[in-house]
Amino acid sequence: MKRLFVIFVSMAIALVTKAQHPVTFFTRAELPGIKSALNKYPLLTDSYADIKREVDQWLDKDVDVPFPKDPAGGYTHDRHKANYMLMFNSGILYNITGNTKYALLVKKMFLKYAVLNPTLKKHPQATSSSPGHIFWQALNDANWLVYSGMAYDLIYNSLSAPERTVIEQGAFKPEVDFLTKDLSSWFNLIHNHGVWACAGVGIAGIATGNKDWVDMALYGTDKKGKSGFIAQMDGLFSPDGYYTEGPYYVRYAILPYYLFANSLDHARPELKVFQHRDNILQKALLAGLQQTNLDGTFFPLNDAMKEKDFTSNELVSAIDIAWNVYGKNEGFLTVAKKQDRVLIHKGGASIAAAIASAKNIPPYFPYKTIEYTDGVKGDEGGVSFLRNGKDKNTTTLIYKYTSHGLSHGHFDKLNINLFDKGNEVISDYGSVRFIGVEQKYGGRYLPENKTYAEQTIAHNTITVDETTQFGGKEELSEKFHSDKLFSDIKNPNALAVAAKEDNAYKGVHLQRNVYMLQLPDGRKFIADIFNATSNETHQYDLPFQYNGTVISTSFKYDANTKKQEVLGKKNGYQFLWKEAEAGVKDSLIQFTFLNKNTYYSISSAADTAGVSLFFTRSGANDPNFNLRRDPAFIIRKSGASKAFVNMIEIHGNFDPVAEFSSNSYSSVKAINILRNDEQYSVVEVLINDKKLLIAQCNNNFEAIQKHQLTVNDKRLEFTGPYQVTYDGKLF
Amino acid sequence: MKRLFVIFVSMAIALVTKAQHPVTFFTRAELPGIKSALNKYPLLTDSYADIKREVDQWLDKDVDVPFPKDPAGGYTHDRHKANYMLMFNSGILYNITGNTKYALLVKKMFLKYAVLNPTLKKHPQATSSSPGHIFWQALNDANWLVYSGMAYDLIYNSLSAPERTVIEQGAFKPEVDFLTKDLSSWFNLIHNHGVWACAGVGIAGIATGNKDWVDMALYGTDKKGKSGFIAQMDGLFSPDGYYTEGPYYVRYAILPYYLFANSLDHARPELKVFQHRDNILQKALLAGLQQTNLDGTFFPLNDAMKEKDFTSNELVSAIDIAWNVYGKNEGFLTVAKKQDRVLIHKGGASIAAAIASAKNIPPYFPYKTIEYTDGVKGDEGGVSFLRNGKDKNTTTLIYKYTSHGLSHGHFDKLNINLFDKGNEVISDYGSVRFIGVEQKYGGRYLPENKTYAEQTIAHNTITVDETTQFGGKEELSEKFHSDKLFSDIKNPNALAVAAKEDNAYKGVHLQRNVYMLQLPDGRKFIADIFNATSNETHQYDLPFQYNGTVISTSFKYDANTKKQEVLGKKNGYQFLWKEAEAGVKDSLIQFTFLNKNTYYSISSAADTAGVSLFFTRSGANDPNFNLRRDPAFIIRKSGASKAFVNMIEIHGNFDPVAEFSSNSYSSVKAINILRNDEQYSVVEVLINDKKLLIAQCNNNFEAIQKHQLTVNDKRLEFTGPYQVTYDGKLF
Repeated sequence: MKRLFVIFVSMAIALVTKAQHPVTFFTRAELPGIKSALNKYPLLTDSYADIKREVDQWLDKDVDVPFPKDPAGGYTHDRHKANYMLMFNSGILYNITGNTKYALLVKKMFLKYAVLNPTLKKHPQATSSSPGHIFWQALNDANWLVYSGMAYDLIYNSLSAPERTVIEQGAFKPEVDFLTKDLSSWFNLIHNHGVWACAGVGIAGIATGNKDWVDMALYGTDKKGKSGFIAQMDGLFSPDGYYTEGPYYVRYAILPYYLFANSLDHARPELKVFQHRDNILQKALLAGLQQTNLDGTFFPLNDAMKEKDFTSNELVSAIDIAWNVYGKNEGFLTVAKKQDRVLIHKGGASIAAAIASAKNIPPYFPYKTIEYTDGVKGDEGGVSFLRNGKDKNTTTLIYKYTSHGLSHGHFDKLNINLFDKGNEVISDYGSVRFIGVEQKYGGRYLPENKTYAEQTIAHNTITVDETTQFGGKEELSEKFHSDKLFSDIKNPNALAVAAKEDNAYKGVHLQRNVYMLQLPDGRKFIADIFNATSNETHQYDLPFQYNGTVISTSFKYDANTKKQEVLGKKNGYQFLWKEAEAGVKDSLIQFTFLNKNTYYSISSAADTAGVSLFFTRSGANDPNFNLRRDPAFIIRKSGASKAFVNMIEIHGNFDPVAEFSSNSYSSVKAINILRNDEQYSVVEVLINDKKLLIAQCNNNFEAIQKHQLTVNDKRLEFTGPYQVTYDGKLF
Repeated sequence: MKRLFVIFVSMAIALVTKAQHPVTFFTRAELPGIKSALNKYPLLTDSYADIKREVDQWLDKDVDVPFPKDPAGGYTHDRHKANYMLMFNSGILYNITGNTKYALLVKKMFLKYAVLNPTLKKHPQATSSSPGHIFWQALNDANWLVYSGMAYDLIYNSLSAPERTVIEQGAFKPEVDFLTKDLSSWFNLIHNHGVWACAGVGIAGIATGNKDWVDMALYGTDKKGKSGFIAQMDGLFSPDGYYTEGPYYVRYAILPYYLFANSLDHARPELKVFQHRDNILQKALLAGLQQTNLDGTFFPLNDAMKEKDFTSNELVSAIDIAWNVYGKNEGFLTVAKKQDRVLIHKGGASIAAAIASAKNIPPYFPYKTIEYTDGVKGDEGGVSFLRNGKDKNTTTLIYKYTSHGLSHGHFDKLNINLFDKGNEVISDYGSVRFIGVEQKYGGRYLPENKTYAEQTIAHNTITVDETTQFGGKEELSEKFHSDKLFSDIKNPNALAVAAKEDNAYKGVHLQRNVYMLQLPDGRKFIADIFNATSNETHQYDLPFQYNGTVISTSFKYDANTKKQEVLGKKNGYQFLWKEAEAGVKDSLIQFTFLNKNTYYSISSAADTAGVSLFFTRSGANDPNFNLRRDPAFIIRKSGASKAFVNMIEIHGNFDPVAEFSSNSYSSVKAINILRNDEQYSVVEVLINDKKLLIAQCNNNFEAIQKHQLTVNDKRLEFTGPYQVTYDGKLF
């Protein structure tokens, strides 16, 4: 009796909304345009043929809908994942061809899910606080809802009313109830999981004509708007489109954002979701693309799998939909061409047409020097991408001074990474995870992700007293963010950014000014002035996670040739083998390494108090071979306040095929810190026989402020927070 | 008076030979054809434009001819290296354009060399037994003679008689005398250096019309023919074209072979050098190309820089000249297209024309399963390249049972290497060298090349008692070679090769049978039955230098997590950190690793006597960071006679972009050695639920021999040295 009542109510709601189908992925009105384009544009033709080939092999088969058992990488996981894509693609084919075989395939699968889903409880492999039913984590169940929801909408017209009822009640309702009731706090969390959950419930709601589900999806389970999709658009991006979890996760979240927005644009056009918050979804996509390397891989800020690139399915969907709603963009053409496939969608058809008629698609996305703020209001620090050079000769310095980045954040305030010619030169470990590999903890994040990759020592910023920033406590780190002091990116030959961090270590003020310089003779440098200031004595470790082969050092070191021990006991130090160490006093520290065909030299200023240097390699305390064996060069200084002044030079060419090596020595001959205090830092770098002079103010960052000081009996005048001259001249 | 006499004699010889110029690189008769093609075929047009751009920037400059000072990678080395190419290219431009500026540039440089060369003694950086004058080693002086000789010939017609005398006597004679007199034993050695030396002296002889020099080049300084170019063609190749030093060095030697042969073909056509020894130079080139990976890099047998590929200048010259003299070859088109440049030569013009008109140039060289003998008579062992799959899915197993390979040989008898999908999976260290990098020992072979890379433990073959084959003595190793017992490469699904080695370790007989198998269901395996037989107890170590990430093992191991020590004290063992170790008794040993997107599992038969396993990594005792940090998996057994039966499975797919991982577990469930003795080895491998049966005879390798035996109460019959069945059937 109760069950009948439920069925009656849900049917009534369906009648009220009087939805036309299809309406989620594409609309009936859009279909003729897509169909007529199918044979016109090669990318669309091929993409259509691909899904048809994939689906057709299942047409006469009985598709397994197994009882959930395995974690990621296992059979049941992969089968269900393949199933929702199969249903979605078959639904598309039904609409394009009108062939009921495709609808029938989907219906049969849905009827199996309608039997299975009501029986499901917590997945046997679930380990997280948000366990799934069909999959080991609820996130994957949300993925299922997104695609199954669209699939259902796509075949809706082929179903009888009783079939609809069985599927809606059996396949969808248990899943929606599970996510919105059992996991309501997870559903309402502002986080990439939440975006997926809202999109899943919302698309299912549109597909089934269930206003309640759509409203919960839009405004949270209590429908008050503090959670839900609109809040996810408001809460996860800065005003300029930086996604707080970083580029690897915007890559993932962009898909539910775009797919649900695409559905809402059809079903609830009055919401104008694509225009929401000054086109925030457009900004998010562009920001995500600017945060990629030359090969399209996302820069590894926070937890990140380094292999992920913009050819992934998520970005195909986002690019095609964005092209449709926001209009043409040349950079999208470059990306879509590399993706080599499009959606069977109005946007996909349109971008395929544009590629077919384009004469010259640039080989690289139009990367540029760009800065993003972090935080909803854009006042929680940010990240700068300083770039020099063009196309395959692009150099990118990433300087990160963001907020924590939620649960996938790393303790890496004031971190830098260097990419050059497409290679990761000063690197970030990324995440410790083998996605989809069952033998590696079911493809989940491995324990070393937390114990090593997140820790400060795994990055290229200062670790104080061998402890991680904020004591390694996420909840504490979440409360703070670094602050940008100033930046100046007008002159492409001299880009400057400065930021500070006062909360990561109690009583320690950290300020890092980085300059990306290209001298008139073409030499490229990163100048890096990093001051740690405190009233008490500390040990400061500044690592450079260099990616390459040791070529030479200016100093003698003791290599641990017969026995290797770990660098420390905890906070990530326990994972580092100590390969070599050195003590240097009062002389220039210089280390040259080779990455692919380019030399890189780190030249570091002398310190009268003495400096300890370490060559380390990750892999200690790694009983399951979960870590890569990555090297680092660590500069250690002890004292109350310490300056780390480094010049990173990009130089020379190693050509093992032609057997030529040129310019393999650094041109830095000396680094003299002429002044370094609360007011000013003045550094003189001898580059062969000419002087590079960097002067910066440390307590006033106004662009119009005039500064006058005397250094070494010479008068120095400049306006604004810094000045860089070479051979006495601005450049 | 004496000097005048010498001049008189050499002029007289010049008159006698009445040489037409140019005659070395190309002839006057060939010029019109080259000129008329210049603007027709893009590759030729671009290649010409490249050298013109390069040379033109020097036309009005004074080119430095510095007094020799630096080793490889240093200024004077690189300048002289650039100089000979500049002279050669400018000589070509003079002939093409008729512009005397080009001839003048070359003349001015030659006049400087004519002043410099008579003053030179042993190079200050020389360390080898064959020191150079202009360069740190005589080999580079020979390079100089090859290109300078051709350059001189190219501008010969522009010079006055006195200028010719000055250059021939000043620039050439001291160099030729140095190589043929001071270094006569080096000059006469059968070795890649000797090929260069002969080519240099011979080309200089042709260019200057000095018959004496040409004769020494052809037949050795005593002109008796035991040395010299003809002897180098006879002595360094096997009858089927395998170059005894290996593919990395044939890549190098092929250039002087082809350039000198090209000159001789013009100047001494009656010698028919290209037809010598049944077209040995053609066979050598084809064999060199078959010994490359999908990306064109030469397989790293013996000393080898792994970056070297067939786009290097040496191969451009060889391919273009071979195309000219031996005719069309589709594989050459593929290579020439990747080289993306051609010689300004009849052959270069012809191949550029062929590429311009070709409709579909295959993406890969036509690799095939192929075997080469080693030794002048082809009776000193050899090497097999077993291949399965096509194009980018090609799998190559290299099985090496050659002679030592002269001074660049490694102690690696019965070694295997596995390449798959273009990736090096079971690897060879190659050489320890940073070519051209001055900081790394002047670009020379580093000490670790001898102490590690050459040693047996650095390879994938058995090391007995932690000692290197032949006690690590090259002179001893040179006396022996392994022997092929049989091979059968007719059935592409089951390729088989067996070889033995009786001299590497006294009293130990080593026999290795390898099978490359593709089962009817598509699964790919390498079956590897390696028997060590002795009357005395030994320790046998069989390493697999795997290239990848540890995914899982069937056994528990102790990882050395807090402290790492070296595996051994000498013979290469001192360079290996012991990362983990295990003791396994009586169960299947299985180790799965991931390389790029493919899983590889090594399954090894149990041993009732117990097996020790080690995970090692190179880099111990490496105070200058000269070594890569490469991992190995070592199987250790102790006893008199021991069998190592391994199944290497290539399986599955890891796709981190699409987040799918499939088939990540090995299908090998058991390996049972049913019989293993002097007569027969019979191995049964359980692959999921089906049986693979490998039976081999160990003392009779006749293809027609019938065998009958009873194993496990079952009668087994086969003909020839082996039989492989799956599920009871041949496949």
